[in-house]
Order: sequence, then C-alpha cells, then structure tokens
Amino acid sequence: MSRNCLVAQSGGPTAAINSSLAGVISQALKSDAVHTVYGAKNGIQGVLNDNLVALNDIFAKEEQIERLKNTPSMYLGSCRYKLTDYKKDTSDYDKICEILDKYDIGYFFYIGGNDSMDTVAKLSAYTRDKGLDVKVIGIPKTIDNDLYCIDHTPGFGSAAKYIAASVLEMAHDTYIYAIDTVLIVEIMGRNAGWLTAASSLARTSYSDAPHLIYLPERAFDKKDFVQRVKELLKEKHHVIVAVSEGIKDEDGNYISAQGGKVDKFGHVMLSGTGKVLESIVAEEVGCKVRSVELNVLQRAASHIASETDIEESFCLGANGVRLAMEEKTGVMSTLNRVSDEPYKVVYGEADIEKIANYEKKIPDEWINEDGTDVKEPMERYLRPLIQGESKVAFVNGIPSYMFLR
Amino acid sequence: MSRNCLVAQSGGPTAAINSSLAGVISQALKSDAVHTVYGAKNGIQGVLNDNLVALNDIFAKEEQIERLKNTPSMYLGSCRYKLTDYKKDTSDYDKICEILDKYDIGYFFYIGGNDSMDTVAKLSAYTRDKGLDVKVIGIPKTIDNDLYCIDHTPGFGSAAKYIAASVLEMAHDTYIYAIDTVLIVEIMGRNAGWLTAASSLARTSYSDAPHLIYLPERAFDKKDFVQRVKELLKEKHHVIVAVSEGIKDEDGNYISAQGGKVDKFGHVMLSGTGKVLESIVAEEVGCKVRSVELNVLQRAASHIASETDIEESFCLGANGVRLAMEEKTGVMSTLNRVSDEPYKVVYGEADIEKIANYEKKIPDEWINEDGTDVKEPMERYLRPLIQGESKVAFVNGIPSYMFLR
Repeated sequence: MSRNCLVAQSGGPTAAINSSLAGVISQALKSDAVHTVYGAKNGIQGVLNDNLVALNDIFAKEEQIERLKNTPSMYLGSCRYKLTDYKKDTSDYDKICEILDKYDIGYFFYIGGNDSMDTVAKLSAYTRDKGLDVKVIGIPKTIDNDLYCIDHTPGFGSAAKYIAASVLEMAHDTYIYAIDTVLIVEIMGRNAGWLTAASSLARTSYSDAPHLIYLPERAFDKKDFVQRVKELLKEKHHVIVAVSEGIKDEDGNYISAQGGKVDKFGHVMLSGTGKVLESIVAEEVGCKVRSVELNVLQRAASHIASETDIEESFCLGANGVRLAMEEKTGVMSTLNRVSDEPYKVVYGEADIEKIANYEKKIPDEWINEDGTDVKEPMERYLRPLIQGESKVAFVNGIPSYMFLR
Repeated sequence: MSRNCLVAQSGGPTAAINSSLAGVISQALKSDAVHTVYGAKNGIQGVLNDNLVALNDIFAKEEQIERLKNTPSMYLGSCRYKLTDYKKDTSDYDKICEILDKYDIGYFFYIGGNDSMDTVAKLSAYTRDKGLDVKVIGIPKTIDNDLYCIDHTPGFGSAAKYIAASVLEMAHDTYIYAIDTVLIVEIMGRNAGWLTAASSLARTSYSDAPHLIYLPERAFDKKDFVQRVKELLKEKHHVIVAVSEGIKDEDGNYISAQGGKVDKFGHVMLSGTGKVLESIVAEEVGCKVRSVELNVLQRAASHIASETDIEESFCLGANGVRLAMEEKTGVMSTLNRVSDEPYKVVYGEADIEKIANYEKKIPDEWINEDGTDVKEPMERYLRPLIQGESKVAFVNGIPSYMFLR
C-alpha cells in the first residue's frame, strides 16, 4: 500500500539545496511506495500551518527536475524555527502529527543544516516513542561545511568555487596598478573557516593570492597582521587578504564588533570584519586599501555552481528516499570519500543524534603555525569539490530559474 | 615598408578590455603594414618608462587570442596618468616621441575611457602639429557606459549581465523567509546610472525585483524613500532596492558621505551608499535589512561576461587597426546600433575631441517621474547587450586566464 511523502527545506540558502530537493522528488516519484510528493512551504512552519503543495504535476517532466537542480536558494522557502523539547511541551508535535496523519504522510524529508537536524532528531524521537509509522530523514546542506559524519556538506563546493573564482578575478583587478595596494576579502563563516580556506583554491602558477588567510579557528592578532602586511609590501605591490567574518581576538571578542561606531541615535553602526581590517590598514599601513564582502552571493550564485556539488546534493536527496524505503528513521543521508584521485564518494547514513547541534571545524594540523594560511592537505581535500561547471540555462541573457508562487 | 605598432591600456578594469586588446593584436598580426606588435606596460607610463614588450610570439597561436579575449582586467596593466597641456610643457611628449621613434612605432592604440581619450586627443594633436608620422587611435572601454559618440561602451554589457544575474540570485536568496525584509544593492556609477539601470534586467515573470531603482541623475529624497519602502512592505514581504553609489541629495551632497563617522584619529570612517540606506531602513522602518555592495566583481567577473560584449569589444579593437591603416589619427573606434530586433551594429569612427572629458548620462525621458525606476525604452536598449554567455575555460575548477609576468 503506497503512502505519501513530505519534503521541506530549512535554514540559510545554498546553490545546491534545491538539487537535494530535486533528488528527493525524483526518487520519490520513481518509487511504488510513494503516491503523492508534498512540499511544505517555509519548512516546519509550513507543516504547522498546513501549508502543503503537491509537487507531482510540477515535476512530471524531467526538464523541470533539471531546472530545479540548478536553481539557487530554496524553492519551498525556509524558516528558522526550533521545536521545543517534547517532554516539556507537545503542542508543536501534536499539530505536526495531525498534519502528517491528515495527508497520510509515511515519509518526511527535512533538508537543512545543524538546526534543521535538531528538528529531525526531535521529531524522529517523538514519532518513534509514540509508535507512529512515519520515517523521518535528514538531508544535509550548509555552505559552512561544519556538519559531522559527512566528508563535506552539500552547498559548500559551489560556494567554494564562487569564492575561488572571485578571488582570482579580484586579484586580476588588483594587479594592474604599479602602486602598493591591499585588498581585504571578507568571507562567510562565524565559527568554522572552511569557506575562507577555499580562497586558497584561487592560487595559480602566476598568482599567489591570497597572501594571508585568517580563520576563526585561530585568534587574530592585529599587530602581527599589520607587521605582515608591511613585510609583504616590501616584496610585492599587492597584498590580498582572505578573512572569515567570524575571526576573534585572543580574548574571544569578534573583530567585527570593534569597528562599531555609534550613530546619533546611539545605535551601533553596522561594520563588517573586512571594513575593520580595511580601517586598520588605512591607519597603520597607509597604502591604498579596499575591502570586499562577498556577502550572500557566495551562497546564491548558481550560475557558477560546482557540478560535483550539484550532482552529489542530488544523490544525497535520492539516497535519503532509499533510506526511508529501507524503513530507516532518525538518520541523515551522508556521503563519505573513499578516494581523492580518482575522486570517489559513497552514500550512506548516520545517526542524527551524532550530528545535530555540533560544529565541525578545520583540523588544527591543516592550518600553518602562524595561523595565516592553510597547509597542503587542505587543497587535496578541497580541490575535487569545485570540479565541473553549472548547467544553468540562460534565457534573455539571465539565468533561467524555477520559482514556486 | 612595414612599421611597428604599440598598444596600451588605461583606467579602471572591465571584463572586456582584454578582448579589445586581443582585437588589436589579432588584426595587427594579420596586417602586412605591421611588423612587431609592442605592448606598453601600465599604460602611457610604460611608454614614458620605456617598458615595452613584444607580443608577436605570445599571440602566435589563435588559442592565446581566445584566452586573452576572456581574461578580466588589463593584461598590460593600467595607470591613471593625465598628460599635461603640451602648449605649456612638452617634456612628457618629448619622452613619448623619443620612445615611439626608438621602436619605429607608426601606430599607437590606446584602450581606455574618458581620461584615456584625453591622452589620445592630446597626443594625436601633438604628433599632427609636429608632422610626425604616427597614427594615434582610441579604443573605448568603460563599464560606466558614459562615453559619447558610441551606442554603448565595451565592458558595460558584461557588467550589466553580472548585475542582472546577481540581483536575480539575491532576490531568490531574499524571498525564502516569510518576514519583512529589505535588501539594498549598491552598484557602481558616480555620475551616470547606466549600471544601476541594468538591475532592471533581473526582472522575470515571477520576480519584480528591484522594486526601487535610484540613479545619480535624480536627487535622492530620504523621506520619500522611507515612505515608499513602508508602502511596498504593505503589499509584499520583500523589497529590493538598487542604488547607484553616486546618488546625491537635492543640495548635491553625496548620500554616501552622510554615513561617514569619524574614528579616534579623526579619519572619516569609510561608508558606502548601501550602508547608509541600510541604516536609514533599520532606523526608520525597523525591519530586517541587509546591504550588498557589488564592488569590483561587477567589472571583473569574466566568468559571466556577455558574449555580445566580448565580441563587440574585439571588433572595436580590430576596427581601430583598420582605421590606422586608412591613415586616420585622433579618432576613436566606435559602434553604432542600426537595429534593435534583430540587434545589429556597425563599426565606425568619431573625432576624439567630441569624446574626451564628456560624460553621457541617462536620458531624462528614460527615467520615471518619481525617479524610482526606469522606463520601457531602457530595456529595449539594454537587453541585447547581455545576450550570450562567456566562453571562459575552467581548469582545476577555476577560470583559466592569461597573465603577463
């Protein structure tokens, strides 16, 4: 007897989270055990609000699956909603189970990062305790690459490719004038420096930028930074610095907060880490300096997504459906690397309890002693993840993406 | 009797200026009238410093021409150097002519924007006055699209395509949460709003972003802006604003300067127009707000260059060589549009005196009455310029560009 399935997306966007959604939809549509594929709009809030949409007709044609794979952000919308502990308050769970029952949902797939895996952990524990026949499966995503039990996270490779290409292009932009110039590139990552480390992939036979890489895994020393910039400017006209938004000083204070000036109403003026480093260089080095914040484009630029990332994200979605068909619940779909050259991964599962609410940081031995660069194992790890180019179609000169009204 | 030619690049980078260089080199290499093609490093300063490099061997293979076409920024480096009035001081001119004579240069091609055309105007006038047999030709470039005597400038189309695609991708990124959100996108353009107007190309059947477009051609009214954002938020959760860096208030003061706070040393803190509008929304509307400065990526992102722009830029370079062979001097290579549909241009020439030091702004009738959007003729004008995609090759997951050591 076939039942219905439900899929939703949560947390921050990536260029690959819709590819995981496409993988879930595609695999579910192929399965005899699934009748209707429902999507909940705006994550678990869409379930709580009974805001479900049937997806079978929209994705009946293979070409729509392809378009979805290459569309940035979240086709089903997102939310940031943390379920309560059901041992204290079951109201959210009662409501969710009412909806699951109403739509005869046998399989629930939740695509997201750390916080979303917390939802999977809680909901799967609850349904198991209650003896409800609903398989709850987590599908990973996050540009931050900070999940445990998976070699790397879907969405990270595309962001890494955007960062590497953009840093190279900005290096070309910087090298043209024969005057001392410092470029600061601020990259996402509050606690883990994976994305900033990916800037090292911009290096080529002719360009050694970035010349300094600052990660949240190490304390940032302002004096040492100024000294290094001055030394580098003696060797070369151009110094390019990649910095994580989340770097802190040795007392654990965010560097970004230190540039915060107060406006006439007493509000702290918004100021990013890159701007703070720009001010430091302007004041203490005195050369031409510019800062660039890659901002949301690093997670949304599907036009330069990594093909490897998009395909793996699709497979992780499809693998999640297979896990559910095997009667698994409370697990996350994962991939593990079995070889660097040739690059090869296998798909599997991990107990959700081992993943939710933990953050994977860069291993200490992959960062140089000075805390200003990454070491060789990092490139071996990263390089395969940015291989291959996006298959985005362009119509009217701009990318052709999907949108759910 | 064949002579040698010299080419140089000047001003700010674009994704297409190397394509014009490729056009000059390719056409000159084919010409019996040219023996050696020299490039001067760092523009006219490279001529003054006798820093020339022979390019024939590097570009003997067609594939190198193709790589150069798709490489961002300036292969030969750049400078910002204004020649003096030769009626007052001939020292720069004497030095330049000494170098031109030393290398037997019969043709000098200078690729650049407004300021570079000033160099072409002065140098061609000088050589003409002196009766020197050197043809001096200007090849246009500027992302700003603010040159006269040309339908649109090389480099503009690629920047416009990057802006349109990025605004669409950021719109997808913004739409996912069901809460009121304002996104401010700051786009280059101190005096002319062409690049900001190109954000209108991001609109699709499902996305009407940007919802407000602010151009330097009209005074910016803060109160009216706040009112409009509030009104738009009543209709929809998400308001996306495209703004030129160079907008001013009705007294002619830059809006960007108004956010300038002073640090402990008395220096004005760097603050962009987008950040100022972000602060205004945070204070006066109070909803979630983010600002993104597209920064140098809008001029350097060759990976999403417009094929139309790259091909036209190449043809403008080649056309410049043809003009020199026809014994023209003191002219700029131009293109004029003869039809929108099908889009068609023809190449020609314009007297350099009509171009240097003028800025072409958006026609008043292409801006709506409120000064918050562009009107229909703008899309007809812009849309052909972003057609076709870059042919950049990727190696090791990143774009493969050329670099002169």
